[in-house]
Amino acid sequence: MSNFKVRVLYDFQGEPGTAEMSVTAGDVLTVTRTDVGEGWWEGLSPKGQSGLFPEAYVEKIESGPPSIPPPALPWSLPGTEKAQQEPDKGSDDGWDDSDFEENTYEVPPYHGNNDNSTAQTRNEIYQGYPASEQNHNYQQYARQSTQSDTVSLSGSTMGDGKGTIAKKSLNIFSSAVRSGLEGYILGLTKDFSSTASKRIHIYREGDEQLGRWENISNPYTVQIASPKKATKMGGLKSFIAYQLTPSFTNIEVSRRYKHFDWLHDRLTEKFNLIAIPPLPDKQVSGRYDEGFIEQRRALLQEFINYMCRHPVLSTCDVWIHFLTCTDEKQWKQGKRNAEKDQLIGASFCLSVDAPEKELMPSLVDVKIDENIKYIDKMDQCIKNLMSTSQDQQKKCINMYKREFSRVGAAFLALGSAFEYNQQGMFTKASLDVKNIGSTFTIIGKLYEDQAKIDWEPLTQKLYIYKGITSSLPNILQMQKMAEQKKKDCERNNQVPQLALTDVRRRSDVITYTVFAELEHFQQERDHDLKLALKEFLQEQLNFYRNVVSKLENTLNNYE
Amino acid sequence: MSNFKVRVLYDFQGEPGTAEMSVTAGDVLTVTRTDVGEGWWEGLSPKGQSGLFPEAYVEKIESGPPSIPPPALPWSLPGTEKAQQEPDKGSDDGWDDSDFEENTYEVPPYHGNNDNSTAQTRNEIYQGYPASEQNHNYQQYARQSTQSDTVSLSGSTMGDGKGTIAKKSLNIFSSAVRSGLEGYILGLTKDFSSTASKRIHIYREGDEQLGRWENISNPYTVQIASPKKATKMGGLKSFIAYQLTPSFTNIEVSRRYKHFDWLHDRLTEKFNLIAIPPLPDKQVSGRYDEGFIEQRRALLQEFINYMCRHPVLSTCDVWIHFLTCTDEKQWKQGKRNAEKDQLIGASFCLSVDAPEKELMPSLVDVKIDENIKYIDKMDQCIKNLMSTSQDQQKKCINMYKREFSRVGAAFLALGSAFEYNQQGMFTKASLDVKNIGSTFTIIGKLYEDQAKIDWEPLTQKLYIYKGITSSLPNILQMQKMAEQKKKDCERNNQVPQLALTDVRRRSDVITYTVFAELEHFQQERDHDLKLALKEFLQEQLNFYRNVVSKLENTLNNYE
Repeated sequence: MSNFKVRVLYDFQGEPGTAEMSVTAGDVLTVTRTDVGEGWWEGLSPKGQSGLFPEAYVEKIESGPPSIPPPALPWSLPGTEKAQQEPDKGSDDGWDDSDFEENTYEVPPYHGNNDNSTAQTRNEIYQGYPASEQNHNYQQYARQSTQSDTVSLSGSTMGDGKGTIAKKSLNIFSSAVRSGLEGYILGLTKDFSSTASKRIHIYREGDEQLGRWENISNPYTVQIASPKKATKMGGLKSFIAYQLTPSFTNIEVSRRYKHFDWLHDRLTEKFNLIAIPPLPDKQVSGRYDEGFIEQRRALLQEFINYMCRHPVLSTCDVWIHFLTCTDEKQWKQGKRNAEKDQLIGASFCLSVDAPEKELMPSLVDVKIDENIKYIDKMDQCIKNLMSTSQDQQKKCINMYKREFSRVGAAFLALGSAFEYNQQGMFTKASLDVKNIGSTFTIIGKLYEDQAKIDWEPLTQKLYIYKGITSSLPNILQMQKMAEQKKKDCERNNQVPQLALTDVRRRSDVITYTVFAELEHFQQERDHDLKLALKEFLQEQLNFYRNVVSKLENTLNNYE
Repeated sequence: MSNFKVRVLYDFQGEPGTAEMSVTAGDVLTVTRTDVGEGWWEGLSPKGQSGLFPEAYVEKIESGPPSIPPPALPWSLPGTEKAQQEPDKGSDDGWDDSDFEENTYEVPPYHGNNDNSTAQTRNEIYQGYPASEQNHNYQQYARQSTQSDTVSLSGSTMGDGKGTIAKKSLNIFSSAVRSGLEGYILGLTKDFSSTASKRIHIYREGDEQLGRWENISNPYTVQIASPKKATKMGGLKSFIAYQLTPSFTNIEVSRRYKHFDWLHDRLTEKFNLIAIPPLPDKQVSGRYDEGFIEQRRALLQEFINYMCRHPVLSTCDVWIHFLTCTDEKQWKQGKRNAEKDQLIGASFCLSVDAPEKELMPSLVDVKIDENIKYIDKMDQCIKNLMSTSQDQQKKCINMYKREFSRVGAAFLALGSAFEYNQQGMFTKASLDVKNIGSTFTIIGKLYEDQAKIDWEPLTQKLYIYKGITSSLPNILQMQKMAEQKKKDCERNNQVPQLALTDVRRRSDVITYTVFAELEHFQQERDHDLKLALKEFLQEQLNFYRNVVSKLENTLNNYE
């Protein structure tokens, strides 16, 4: 890309001692490199100084006609495009490849929503349709995009049961198709389940519980240690590396945020019937701030903990590869394998062994509808509690601390005033009043310290659950879509009876998978989340006990 | 006074069922009566409706030329004027006389400052000067008023020691004269000390303490009970009456705020070397609000408590009369006696028996200067702590309660969301989470309740001390003035040696009185104030213990 000019939108303070450059809103910069990676560009300041700045802080100055947004290409993410253009660019998938880094900011910044659009990045799974038909249908999609982008698949929008399977399946850009769900239900998906390293089992116990994942056979934990700052390109770029130590290997591996990000993409791509815990948000500025790094580490630890507790996620290949690989060559190979995984989206169900028992549609519908309402409510309440918790965390550090300091200062000043009339005999009185002051000041400080051990961990825990509850509605909708697809098949008589049995079975496997995932969420709620709330309560109690003991002490010494 | 028109400045909501009238800012009213009392006027609304409204809410519409402020008559307060015009208006000094009520709002609204201007309401004490000379000096005063209104009496402003006593004494409107100080020091004040019902003793123990009041021989307390709402004029006016029960009589007397107000005027008039505790502020609107009435009662109780603890104030005639009189006729007689008291201002010292030992001026000056700095510092710090306390009181009721309620609501909602997925087995989990919510909501409520038992009493106590510390500088200045007057006499040789001894003695009596009062303040600080701070600390401790116990309980029930 030849040099071009950008206008700075926001002030940016470059970190001293690095290649970062401070820029001021309004400056016009000449961009000299866009392949620095991780959202950084290199350019020249108006004074001719060269340095790095965050891409997100600038806007390109258009020299041609007024900018018109390019036509939408919703099924073709930049990452895929590149992968298709450069299918085997050898050294580009190691730890530090710039290509990898450049793509980091090209996915939506918020990871909380497990939206399934990433699943569409693989056209290979739509093997039933010739490429030309895909192109042909682009214009049709463009007209329908608003409508077909919704995950709702009620009978009426699907053609009132009058169309044929073949006709409907032409709308290959529908959500059901993009997620691979339609292909799977109709049995059009090529079965790659033999490539799975292991099969997933779902059990059913009693009528209350419609499905649960098999238990984790070898539970393990992974510790993520306080990160280290490292440099590359001879000090031009610095980055943060986290040290992960899985309990089953006890071998430390070093991972950067971009590796987590890549992993997260693979997980959301592969599992669209499993809620993937969210990663901490991306952030361009302040990345080397100690508080930020520690907060990110804590959130990554929460992400890891959730992964380790999930029966399917904790054993999947890409995750194990991520946790264990220490060799760069093997890393590249594992990375390529993960990116070529065929059992992604609904195809994942091909590797699932669900109970044989046929599900009763009426019962399932009721349970699913119940869960839709329930998850929606949980999602709202968790979001609300999380923002409350975050708010309290801030208030402890600022407001409460300030209030107690103010009270403390007023008593301290009065105690000092007592001393103005020096007659010896008043020293104890002055000290007593000053001690009240110090105590309140100390309590203010306690609030600040405490926020890190009660509100902050609660916020972090709820961040994970917020990600989960905002993913679950999509998963419930997948079940709805599968059910609808099955009903469509039942209604039109062009599907042979034998094939219909298979359709029903595959729809049941989807439903079992969804219920197993819901059951896992319930378990997490009743164990992990409940425990976190209890720990929060315990910490609040500890805090107020501490306050009591400070006041007691002061009172006991007061004459 | 003939009817006149006023413009309403602020909206006022009349209390239903009384003669009060609601008026709206901008309305023009015709005033029909101004002698209703307690700051109320009667008038006709634009619609012709008749009713009462607060005088302070309206402004007179001037019909003549643009209003020019009338010439200042600083030595002649309206109350005195009236007293002179109507010297013996028989029935006007009972419990409910309208004349008495009308004057209620004609004194400065803030009682915290014991400014000595009320002392000037009695011209009788300046018996040394013929009335014509007083008139003659009015113009001289008018020119000098800014200068002579200040309480500072440094040698330079007093004529650099070049003038004679006679010459200086012509400036009868100076602070020293207005307070009766100059007359007293010079021995020009007529000695009415034989009229005193008792003499006041000051003792001196050791060199550290320069003086202290004799101890209270019969300590007593006075309880002020929850006030009752009463009416008069056939329900036209309603008022609040407080029930006071002194421990030494155990007979309840009924007093209104205006009686306290009258008492306070008498006390500040009589004692300008003693700090009079402040009354609660006057307030026109919301007078029947329950919270306001209770707060006023509590502040009156604090006022009473301070009075009872003061060796001089607790035994003075007007106070005892106020506490004990139950007969209307006796009340009127006592009221007249108090208003005719001759031992007011500096003349009060004529009834003081101070130690015989002559004071060392150098020591006294050092101590006084120390105390000026000390009292100034105390005054600032008490004001600051009081406003902090008041602020915290509000914050407990609003902010803290709101914050905890918000947290509680977020947990309660999450607990409810748990129930959306009704499967019986989750009931306990839901309950646990809800219990956290209830606990935080309860803690919020505790904050609100607690404010009434920790911050509010602290604020009330500090209100009294703020009044005291803001009065003490005037008292210290009185001593400075007395000292200066003495020095002036010593410098000019026109005063005979014998008379000079008397001048020194009288100056010493003033100094002993001031030190006795400072010593009393120290005792109050080290006993009453310190105890109040301790009680506050104890209440804070109780509060946090309560919080701990709520959290403990919730945690113990959490599974």
